[in-house]
Amino acid sequence: MENFTFYNPTLIEFGADKEHTVGKHLAKHGIKKVLFCYGSDRIKRDGLFTTVTERLAEYGIGYVELGGIVSNPVISKVREGIALARAEQVDAILAVGGGSVLDSVKGIAAGVPYAGDVWDLFSGTTLVTSALPTFAIMTLAATGSEMNCSGVVTNDETQEKFFISAPALFPKVSIVNPRLMQSVSRDYLVYSAADVIAHCIEAYFTASVHPTLNSRIVESVINTIIETTGILLDDPANDAARGEFAWAATLALNGLTFSGCAGFGFPNHAIEHSLSALFNVPHGAGLSTVIPAWMKWYQSRNPAQFTRFARQVFGVDSPEAGIAALEAWFNKIGTPTRLGKLGIKESDLPAIGENVQMSVQRFGLAAQYSPAVVNDILRCAL
Amino acid sequence: MENFTFYNPTLIEFGADKEHTVGKHLAKHGIKKVLFCYGSDRIKRDGLFTTVTERLAEYGIGYVELGGIVSNPVISKVREGIALARAEQVDAILAVGGGSVLDSVKGIAAGVPYAGDVWDLFSGTTLVTSALPTFAIMTLAATGSEMNCSGVVTNDETQEKFFISAPALFPKVSIVNPRLMQSVSRDYLVYSAADVIAHCIEAYFTASVHPTLNSRIVESVINTIIETTGILLDDPANDAARGEFAWAATLALNGLTFSGCAGFGFPNHAIEHSLSALFNVPHGAGLSTVIPAWMKWYQSRNPAQFTRFARQVFGVDSPEAGIAALEAWFNKIGTPTRLGKLGIKESDLPAIGENVQMSVQRFGLAAQYSPAVVNDILRCAL
Repeated sequence: MENFTFYNPTLIEFGADKEHTVGKHLAKHGIKKVLFCYGSDRIKRDGLFTTVTERLAEYGIGYVELGGIVSNPVISKVREGIALARAEQVDAILAVGGGSVLDSVKGIAAGVPYAGDVWDLFSGTTLVTSALPTFAIMTLAATGSEMNCSGVVTNDETQEKFFISAPALFPKVSIVNPRLMQSVSRDYLVYSAADVIAHCIEAYFTASVHPTLNSRIVESVINTIIETTGILLDDPANDAARGEFAWAATLALNGLTFSGCAGFGFPNHAIEHSLSALFNVPHGAGLSTVIPAWMKWYQSRNPAQFTRFARQVFGVDSPEAGIAALEAWFNKIGTPTRLGKLGIKESDLPAIGENVQMSVQRFGLAAQYSPAVVNDILRCAL
Repeated sequence: MENFTFYNPTLIEFGADKEHTVGKHLAKHGIKKVLFCYGSDRIKRDGLFTTVTERLAEYGIGYVELGGIVSNPVISKVREGIALARAEQVDAILAVGGGSVLDSVKGIAAGVPYAGDVWDLFSGTTLVTSALPTFAIMTLAATGSEMNCSGVVTNDETQEKFFISAPALFPKVSIVNPRLMQSVSRDYLVYSAADVIAHCIEAYFTASVHPTLNSRIVESVINTIIETTGILLDDPANDAARGEFAWAATLALNGLTFSGCAGFGFPNHAIEHSLSALFNVPHGAGLSTVIPAWMKWYQSRNPAQFTRFARQVFGVDSPEAGIAALEAWFNKIGTPTRLGKLGIKESDLPAIGENVQMSVQRFGLAAQYSPAVVNDILRCAL
């Protein structure tokens, strides 16, 4: 087991109606005015916007709106948020939405006190040392952003999809009401399932040190995602399944599964980020396409763990059977496993291989994932 | 899944040599002088005391000593600590030891700013609203106190063993170096294994709402404890096993296993606390004696979960076989399963049944665990 520091001070309010606690929590942190960030106008149509602003008003908390944050969020929007937050002198940023909104909010929060251009913090040329406090009300369970200190944003000029990470970026409070997620589309539910599984398996398969306890916890999360996705596809209003799916998504990337691990990377994320950056595919759909391809390419490097995965998750006996079972399950729930389904052709592979180089460098994986290797991997997904 | 709030701001420094970070962490929190609490003089003989005081000196942090905290810690010692902390005007309390030391430290930390008698906070007549900051260096993995906001202390006048709990009591920083635990005796290792398993199974078996994800995580912890205890009995210097044992012990009682559960109690702890309070038996030894007895008495109330336990932990098929397998495992590792081994006779049962009433009231279980019921349960352990 490797030495580690575990620190996760985010307060999670989980369950029905918890969005009503937002005013109380902001007031407890002394917040007087927030930048209220969201994606589409759906939250205005379904009443969530009104609920939140009423709770803010009860505590005398003002707000300015920043709507229109898109999936695969972009740095130009983050810059817009920073300018608005400064002009309006807000003292916190509130995300109401999914991971894209919260990741953008983390960028804004870090960018406000930073004198240079916020992209420096994503490219890693400057470390984040301070940030405005952030709060979140989640309407999608997938990215785990609600209980970690990282965020991913695409530079819409350079087509780099990079991450930001610093303890100052842990949300102070994240509100996770699974009922707010009932209206998530069937597509986004299955993309989210792929995303959560992706968060779990990167260290599981690639770490040079990976305690058995961590393997067990990862398998607990994956088995829960597989089980509850099946239930939710039949019955989107199933509260118990929606709740377990959401909490599993949070635990998948809150630090728990990595504690004591060493020498791991995020190759599937590094490769997928280029698919999202270049072709604007949904992150989860990109991941479900990359993962089985990467697994086929990688499995001989860690056969014991691939055998363990096959047995503990799918009850089959060989690495190949485990990979086939995961790919079959992705196909069954309806998240893509072929590049063609994403509109990506074989002739696109060289450009992807090149773009991935920026990502793998940022992820510290450059030596292993040359353009040729990335092409080899992605050819398994043609 | 039940609504819940998850909040755990304790920073964990885990791994070899992490005790050397103590001065840095105290300084970061602005601490100038600590009450340095410990148990026996072992930490002076093995060099840990010197290591810690040198690290304090580097940061100009003063200290006053409070040694001699015993297993099954007592409120009279907590009162002594409160008086000393006040007289010496310390601004934090540092625990160096196992759960007994840290639980006492939590009592002292809560007692210093409280004008009345500290026992009020344990008996529950007064809520803890503030406390001095606490820090810990653990030399035993068992109680999970390093990452939760609770502590248990015995009133040596009334023989009540009660708990204290409040968010203010989360340690700011807990240092867990598994190597410091290598010298734990064989007996205390197996008692600790029983204690960790006890923390996991209370909600697992008794909750009216218990998500499958939680069951999976509990089984991950229990299977890790079973596996690593076996390794450590043969090879106490096995770093990997010692590390997994320690981290599993922390996760067993840091809130993770209870998130989303409802309607659960701690009957095994309530009953065991009377064995410790009346007969001063090691907590883990008391638990390994109570648990199989309680399971035999309780299993018909939740047969599905007892069947699950049997399968997932011991690979056997019936509740009875699962209970027998756990009892056999306790016997194999050498932690008691019979009251006689603890020096407790059948004629002691009425007095225990009476003492338990104070505990079950504090635990909110009075209706279910009358003296007659407690006697019925404990007769299974004769």
